[in-house]
Amino acid sequence: MEFKYVTKSGTAVFQDRYVTKADRITVPYNENRKHTQKIGLVGAPLSKSSISHSGAGFAPATIRKMLQSFTTYSIDHDRDLASESVVDYGDILMHPTDIVESQKRIRLALDEILHREEPSQLIILGGDHSVSYPAISSFSGSNRVGVIQFDAHHDLRNLEDGGPTNGTPFRSLIEGKCIQGENLVQIGIRDFMNSKIYTQYAQQHGVTVYTMQDVRKQSIKKIVEEAITLLKRNKVDMIYVSVDMDVLDQSFAPGCPAIGPGGMDSHTLIEAIEILGACQMVKAMDIVEIDPTVDYRDMTSKIASWLILSYLRERELMVSTVNNCENEVK
Amino acid sequence: MEFKYVTKSGTAVFQDRYVTKADRITVPYNENRKHTQKIGLVGAPLSKSSISHSGAGFAPATIRKMLQSFTTYSIDHDRDLASESVVDYGDILMHPTDIVESQKRIRLALDEILHREEPSQLIILGGDHSVSYPAISSFSGSNRVGVIQFDAHHDLRNLEDGGPTNGTPFRSLIEGKCIQGENLVQIGIRDFMNSKIYTQYAQQHGVTVYTMQDVRKQSIKKIVEEAITLLKRNKVDMIYVSVDMDVLDQSFAPGCPAIGPGGMDSHTLIEAIEILGACQMVKAMDIVEIDPTVDYRDMTSKIASWLILSYLRERELMVSTVNNCENEVK
Amino acid sequence: MEFKYVTKSGTAVFQDRYVTKADRITVPYNENRKHTQKIGLVGAPLSKSSISHSGAGFAPATIRKMLQSFTTYSIDHDRDLASESVVDYGDILMHPTDIVESQKRIRLALDEILHREEPSQLIILGGDHSVSYPAISSFSGSNRVGVIQFDAHHDLRNLEDGGPTNGTPFRSLIEGKCIQGENLVQIGIRDFMNSKIYTQYAQQHGVTVYTMQDVRKQSIKKIVEEAITLLKRNKVDMIYVSVDMDVLDQSFAPGCPAIGPGGMDSHTLIEAIEILGACQMVKAMDIVEIDPTVDYRDMTSKIASWLILSYLRERELMVSTVNNCENEVK
Amino acid sequence: MEFKYVTKSGTAVFQDRYVTKADRITVPYNENRKHTQKIGLVGAPLSKSSISHSGAGFAPATIRKMLQSFTTYSIDHDRDLASESVVDYGDILMHPTDIVESQKRIRLALDEILHREEPSQLIILGGDHSVSYPAISSFSGSNRVGVIQFDAHHDLRNLEDGGPTNGTPFRSLIEGKCIQGENLVQIGIRDFMNSKIYTQYAQQHGVTVYTMQDVRKQSIKKIVEEAITLLKRNKVDMIYVSVDMDVLDQSFAPGCPAIGPGGMDSHTLIEAIEILGACQMVKAMDIVEIDPTVDYRDMTSKIASWLILSYLRERELMVSTVNNCENEVK
Amino acid sequence: MEFKYVTKSGTAVFQDRYVTKADRITVPYNENRKHTQKIGLVGAPLSKSSISHSGAGFAPATIRKMLQSFTTYSIDHDRDLASESVVDYGDILMHPTDIVESQKRIRLALDEILHREEPSQLIILGGDHSVSYPAISSFSGSNRVGVIQFDAHHDLRNLEDGGPTNGTPFRSLIEGKCIQGENLVQIGIRDFMNSKIYTQYAQQHGVTVYTMQDVRKQSIKKIVEEAITLLKRNKVDMIYVSVDMDVLDQSFAPGCPAIGPGGMDSHTLIEAIEILGACQMVKAMDIVEIDPTVDYRDMTSKIASWLILSYLRERELMVSTVNNCENEVK
Amino acid sequence: MEFKYVTKSGTAVFQDRYVTKADRITVPYNENRKHTQKIGLVGAPLSKSSISHSGAGFAPATIRKMLQSFTTYSIDHDRDLASESVVDYGDILMHPTDIVESQKRIRLALDEILHREEPSQLIILGGDHSVSYPAISSFSGSNRVGVIQFDAHHDLRNLEDGGPTNGTPFRSLIEGKCIQGENLVQIGIRDFMNSKIYTQYAQQHGVTVYTMQDVRKQSIKKIVEEAITLLKRNKVDMIYVSVDMDVLDQSFAPGCPAIGPGGMDSHTLIEAIEILGACQMVKAMDIVEIDPTVDYRDMTSKIASWLILSYLRERELMVSTVNNCENEVK
Ligand SMILES: [Ca+2]
Ligand SMILES: [Ca+2]
Ligand SMILES: [Ca+2]
Ligand SMILES: [Ca+2]
Ligand SMILES: [Ca+2]
Ligand SMILES: [Ca+2]
Ligand SMILES: [Ca+2]
Ligand SMILES: [Ca+2]
Ligand SMILES: [Ca+2]
Ligand SMILES: [Ca+2]
Ligand SMILES: [Ca+2]
Ligand SMILES: [Ca+2]
Repeated sequence: MEFKYVTKSGTAVFQDRYVTKADRITVPYNENRKHTQKIGLVGAPLSKSSISHSGAGFAPATIRKMLQSFTTYSIDHDRDLASESVVDYGDILMHPTDIVESQKRIRLALDEILHREEPSQLIILGGDHSVSYPAISSFSGSNRVGVIQFDAHHDLRNLEDGGPTNGTPFRSLIEGKCIQGENLVQIGIRDFMNSKIYTQYAQQHGVTVYTMQDVRKQSIKKIVEEAITLLKRNKVDMIYVSVDMDVLDQSFAPGCPAIGPGGMDSHTLIEAIEILGACQMVKAMDIVEIDPTVDYRDMTSKIASWLILSYLRERELMVSTVNNCENEVK
Repeated sequence: MEFKYVTKSGTAVFQDRYVTKADRITVPYNENRKHTQKIGLVGAPLSKSSISHSGAGFAPATIRKMLQSFTTYSIDHDRDLASESVVDYGDILMHPTDIVESQKRIRLALDEILHREEPSQLIILGGDHSVSYPAISSFSGSNRVGVIQFDAHHDLRNLEDGGPTNGTPFRSLIEGKCIQGENLVQIGIRDFMNSKIYTQYAQQHGVTVYTMQDVRKQSIKKIVEEAITLLKRNKVDMIYVSVDMDVLDQSFAPGCPAIGPGGMDSHTLIEAIEILGACQMVKAMDIVEIDPTVDYRDMTSKIASWLILSYLRERELMVSTVNNCENEVK
Repeated sequence: MEFKYVTKSGTAVFQDRYVTKADRITVPYNENRKHTQKIGLVGAPLSKSSISHSGAGFAPATIRKMLQSFTTYSIDHDRDLASESVVDYGDILMHPTDIVESQKRIRLALDEILHREEPSQLIILGGDHSVSYPAISSFSGSNRVGVIQFDAHHDLRNLEDGGPTNGTPFRSLIEGKCIQGENLVQIGIRDFMNSKIYTQYAQQHGVTVYTMQDVRKQSIKKIVEEAITLLKRNKVDMIYVSVDMDVLDQSFAPGCPAIGPGGMDSHTLIEAIEILGACQMVKAMDIVEIDPTVDYRDMTSKIASWLILSYLRERELMVSTVNNCENEVK
Repeated sequence: MEFKYVTKSGTAVFQDRYVTKADRITVPYNENRKHTQKIGLVGAPLSKSSISHSGAGFAPATIRKMLQSFTTYSIDHDRDLASESVVDYGDILMHPTDIVESQKRIRLALDEILHREEPSQLIILGGDHSVSYPAISSFSGSNRVGVIQFDAHHDLRNLEDGGPTNGTPFRSLIEGKCIQGENLVQIGIRDFMNSKIYTQYAQQHGVTVYTMQDVRKQSIKKIVEEAITLLKRNKVDMIYVSVDMDVLDQSFAPGCPAIGPGGMDSHTLIEAIEILGACQMVKAMDIVEIDPTVDYRDMTSKIASWLILSYLRERELMVSTVNNCENEVK
Repeated sequence: MEFKYVTKSGTAVFQDRYVTKADRITVPYNENRKHTQKIGLVGAPLSKSSISHSGAGFAPATIRKMLQSFTTYSIDHDRDLASESVVDYGDILMHPTDIVESQKRIRLALDEILHREEPSQLIILGGDHSVSYPAISSFSGSNRVGVIQFDAHHDLRNLEDGGPTNGTPFRSLIEGKCIQGENLVQIGIRDFMNSKIYTQYAQQHGVTVYTMQDVRKQSIKKIVEEAITLLKRNKVDMIYVSVDMDVLDQSFAPGCPAIGPGGMDSHTLIEAIEILGACQMVKAMDIVEIDPTVDYRDMTSKIASWLILSYLRERELMVSTVNNCENEVK
Repeated sequence: MEFKYVTKSGTAVFQDRYVTKADRITVPYNENRKHTQKIGLVGAPLSKSSISHSGAGFAPATIRKMLQSFTTYSIDHDRDLASESVVDYGDILMHPTDIVESQKRIRLALDEILHREEPSQLIILGGDHSVSYPAISSFSGSNRVGVIQFDAHHDLRNLEDGGPTNGTPFRSLIEGKCIQGENLVQIGIRDFMNSKIYTQYAQQHGVTVYTMQDVRKQSIKKIVEEAITLLKRNKVDMIYVSVDMDVLDQSFAPGCPAIGPGGMDSHTLIEAIEILGACQMVKAMDIVEIDPTVDYRDMTSKIASWLILSYLRERELMVSTVNNCENEVK
């Protein structure tokens, strides 16, 4: 029998009957039922793989929690996100002392999800950027994958000096033939945060690089549409969007391990994700490099939650209106 | 007899004889003298009425203190604010356990101030946004009031679920016939922070809504002038400006209870308040939703102090130059 | 079908198969099953009733979470607490703006729990100290209740000045005839934190008061045993233990709203609760006045969790060994 | 005319009519009236004189504010401190760039206070320990002064290397013949916080030194009484008590610039000050080396406030009961 | 003999063989060798001279350390800064209690550096803004110096009220005939942060003032080029750039002592320094008013490091391409 | 040529010529000279091996830095520690992604140090407790090692669930036959922080366990001397002291990853280390589990520094006076 005033611990908060909190867009995966949601979400709480000390492993839980501080309604597009439209598979269990094993588990877990659940879209919450290597390689098993990476850094470091870290995912993908350099577009690469030799590596492998100066001088809309056009011309099967939050300026994203000036403002990044959310070829997005232990009032995780909501809104709009990026960017 | 080097506790700070700190614009209300200042200031330190945990009750004291970090001089307009041009009535005493009683006291206190002191302008420092209901209803007793609200949220929630909170003031005002929906203009309403049903409520009641997308696409100048024109066309007797600081982006106002990305930058808000300060019909302004206990270095309160100073500068300029918004916006 | 490496969000943490985390002692109340646990736990997340700004409403969630940082095993008594020995009823839903209503709900919720579930023991997590009034009055409905209160303050303030706050619970209980002054024992009352008039009130109503000087000069064991003896002599039906964490010195409990020097060290309080846990007449305990928003690394909530574990260990030992306080203190 | 609910800014807090907050013991000095209070209080907000970066200049304001968190009533001695028993002269105005001038002003201000106001007792709030040199030298103008210093450090550094800092006050006093080494008693001097050469200096000048090991092995009561006996035997006219809060262990006084383990607990220091408060020969006390900018929740300032209250209680008890230290310690 | 895995304390961090950290641009001054680097760096860790409490004395160490979080490579200009291109002379030793002596030492130290080492460029890290007086006066000994000052404040306060503080450097320079008012350009002067009388002083002495409104309405490029043109027209021998970081808005530079809204964004300041770095007449730059003790994650120091790197990049580009500001701005 | 006032960056701090800061006891290892110091120090900055998120890898640098806040002089024993009596070998270079490799490097580095440098004493600074396994196993290569472990936890977890973590070092040592269970003494083991099965493991392997209740009921002196006597009776060649700082109560050591109430106070631990420092058989000590990123004002690292100084003082006293533990404890 239910109590009149006592409710499950953690739920005894004020509820306005007319407001749907955005955490309601997700429903926990239940192995005993058949999920009809086509969009999936999974956490990859790995950050021992970071070159510097990082608590990015706490981000999946924090980003999920921050969804509670938003609603499902976009007034600017008069669009209410459907409740329970996303299935939350949960988090991938990391090994305490074997980092390579943890990365392998990310690969295996995504393989299992992709093959068994066949989500139309998958959102992966890091963790640090090292998770993008196993994540993208899982997709590349049966797809020709194009990648659009938002990042202050190339992440093309050599693997000899430290193994597979958050500085190496795109190097690993290229060397491992999971993706071709031509199918990688990097946006937001910044002065004084990269090494000439890795910029040269990018050039040699045909990677398309938009620096922050490019972002400031051109519109983000133009850059993102160029990127989509390029990848379509390259005949990729799908686009994977990888969002390293340190592409943002430190004043907007104080919770990234590698903060600095000279970066993007948050509205520009939101705009980019909106365009990508509306693009049919985008099948997956990861959000990485948020360390909640150094953030201020979870600001950076709040941006991540907002990106997810913007992405989903455009996705739902696209599905419902058969608008898609093919039309938009041709 | 005075001491040579000992001064009243709290005043033993360096004083440059040629600098007037901005806290000198206010003089404490003294019941035994006749105040000639026509502009009044009063604190409404209520935040138990907030849906979430809020220390906004500390804001009146903090905003006043932050005035000490500014001077009275506006170099951009070569204007020195007059000392003691504002009478500070003090703070309204809140009840520890009876929130509705506290709100009633705000109403009664403002009634007393308005009727007895007849200030030409009144600045009200919240507290949370719930204080705007009693504050505006006090003005609406003998005026047809138009309201320009800067806010990420509609604040049009139903009253059944939680009583009169910081989510309900404008609903209360409309339902209570204190203002008409047509005379309410909301600026800065944001995606993922509102509920569709309340946006519909706004539409049904003729509320004019400018979202953040509107703010980004149009100039704030155009929006504010449109708002003034509308209210004048509607024949309101006066305009009340209600500034919920969470209209600002979290990177600019880290001290609001409900922070998030996608908001206004501080300069845009300052510009808006400058225009309103120069408008003769504006008779009152409240500044609400600053929680100094979660702010960083009182940044958000500093913006509040700056808004007050900008508002007063335009006010004094207007009085001295017979410029007024009627000319400006027609 | 289960995933190999993906687990429910929030559970993907390292698990040592031989370690039982102390949060496993509780099982969430399920309205659809018959609970056999005789010990109950309930949260009363109310702190708007505090005289000063308090986030004590967050404490039930934090104390529960801190149980995760302990195990079930007491090496000093070679005792492993039984898993699922406590049923967690959840939290009582508070009203956003009606504080008296919230207090009434605590009373009603406890009435419902006590009458329907008949727990042999109930642990109540505040919230501020105002929750003890409705909580104890619920027990006093059908019992002659003796109270042992650990507190720096009498909490016997008059009700006229601010209504039912965290300064008034024991006044309300005495005035409301829920308990008799003779059946109230206060331990840890401190210099410069009380008013003479309320000490006199305590004396006039036969309240037994042990100050911090008493605690320092006598052993806590002697004081607590005296208190039990007194209440038994007074023929109370049961003892309710009320633990205001501010009885502790600020260096041990940095997270109480009203911190100060001159208080108890944490081991002394633990010792007191151990004695009370072993006393058959003790039927309920509340832990109040922890504000997690001002605590350092949840230290104060960790002490609260430890007190619960110590209490339960003694309780289980008592049940299993038929040792009880009657023998101990006669 | 007074407002019904509006009160002076900063005073709109809940007031229980039966509670006297401890800040009421002080009344601000008013040059236009005749003060009958015989006990004086003055702030010396100087910390640019510190060897390391220090915000101790903020301590006088913070300690005064912390008095608001205590009441006037000592339950352990059933003594209510008289309201307005202390006149607060205010703070001594420091020079922004001339540190030696600031120290001179402390001397001149105290001369003026002592000669014109003739307080029976003076409490001086630092500031760093450098303020004790001008403060004590002011007393030594017409008295043979004995000093009891609570400190982890000798503060007997040479003056050549850095001028008059917080490391030199007692050296300056001895070299300047303001006090004799024999009339200086240091209590709480700590391992690894001093230099052998300064310990030797203390020995050569007849300074009596009780280290922390002495404090741990003997009772503080015995040490303080020995110190009083010694100074009386030496025929000093008065005793000045200098309390460097870093005599406390870092776990009790986290807000001192020079924190470390191995120090005194707060109750021991309180006990010492109680004995000194009851000693007729003690005419002045300073409390120094609290930096509120690095403290946790003003804990260290709260201990300072408590010391003042304990001191005043014993003082009033002494006056009213003609008990004095002569009897106690003979 | 070297150890295989043990390295000097502080250096045991991951090193990617292809990445040069930006701290490698400096080499510590070694009195025993002949330095060929023509660019020098020196710290002036003075902040006791500040009107308000300031830890700016910690900034030289922090800014140097923040260089470690950047690399030497500018992707936007495909330019790798030369390693060891800057000689780090170290820090000037400040006097603990004699502030004027400390300022004199800055002058003497720079005299010694300039005369003996003859650096082509000197970067001075404050400290507060008071260091610019001795620094610029050292250059003015044998040069007609033009100054471009980025600041929210005039820093033209009278010297009588507080001696040579961080509010007076440019007054001292003008009064001391080190520079002429006509050769001083102030950029970023802000509303409500200055006094009318000092604006008038600026006007009377021919100082060129660009307010924040000017910065917002014109491009920073235009303003800086105008300033260079003016100083060239005035026939100065060299330009000294003085960067008070509080010219930035508080949201970008949270670590300045005097924060506030209405300021510059960081990219605008970076752009300005880039132009000045490319101008042959610029011979020195100071960066002042960063207090690392109040900063958030060293953000403000990170901007300072970035400014140094941008300045050096333009400098090296200029040297290598014979581009210089004469061409650019004529 | 030297500058008059400019000194190496980082050294421009006030220096009292008569004070020796305690960091002077160490001299950096120089591969090109012959070190005569017989006591060595080495950092093992590994914390990726921790079960929970830990920044203990930053501790070696912080503990070294905290030595600067102490002097070399112990007044209680009138003993000045010799300068440069300890050679600091530096830190062992950790691998970014291969934790087991990092642990192997600790073993190899210690092997190299022990065999080549033959220090009479070695102090190892962790890092987390996992470093004790490679460290002790290095000593056990040629010695029968007895271990005295201060810890709230057994650290005897199974290795299957997570590999070699900070929960397993003593299990690894026993299973790897590096030490015998009989030669392990654990002091400070705490309630609710261990699992029954691991206590049983300890019992089965003959480990001697003193719980916190033992510490509270007996004197630490008695316990430590019993431990030494036991190990001597067992004919160990040497004693290795392993100090997990979480043996301390959270109020004393707020910077340990696993904080909680019920622990030791800092003076008790200091006393224990003093006895061990005076014991000839003790040849090595590690100090582990300090995470400077969560500490308050480096308090926990300050205790670590103090422990090192106390240990060294007793060591030097022992050497100079031929006092040793054999006499003391027989
Ligand atoms: Ca990246
Ligand atoms: Ca990155
Ligand atoms: Ca609002
Ligand atoms: Ca709002
Ligand atoms: Ca209480
Ligand atoms: Ca209490
Ligand atoms: Ca001292
Ligand atoms: Ca001291
Ligand atoms: Ca300046
Ligand atoms: Ca400035
Ligand atoms: Ca351990
Ligand atoms: Ca441990």
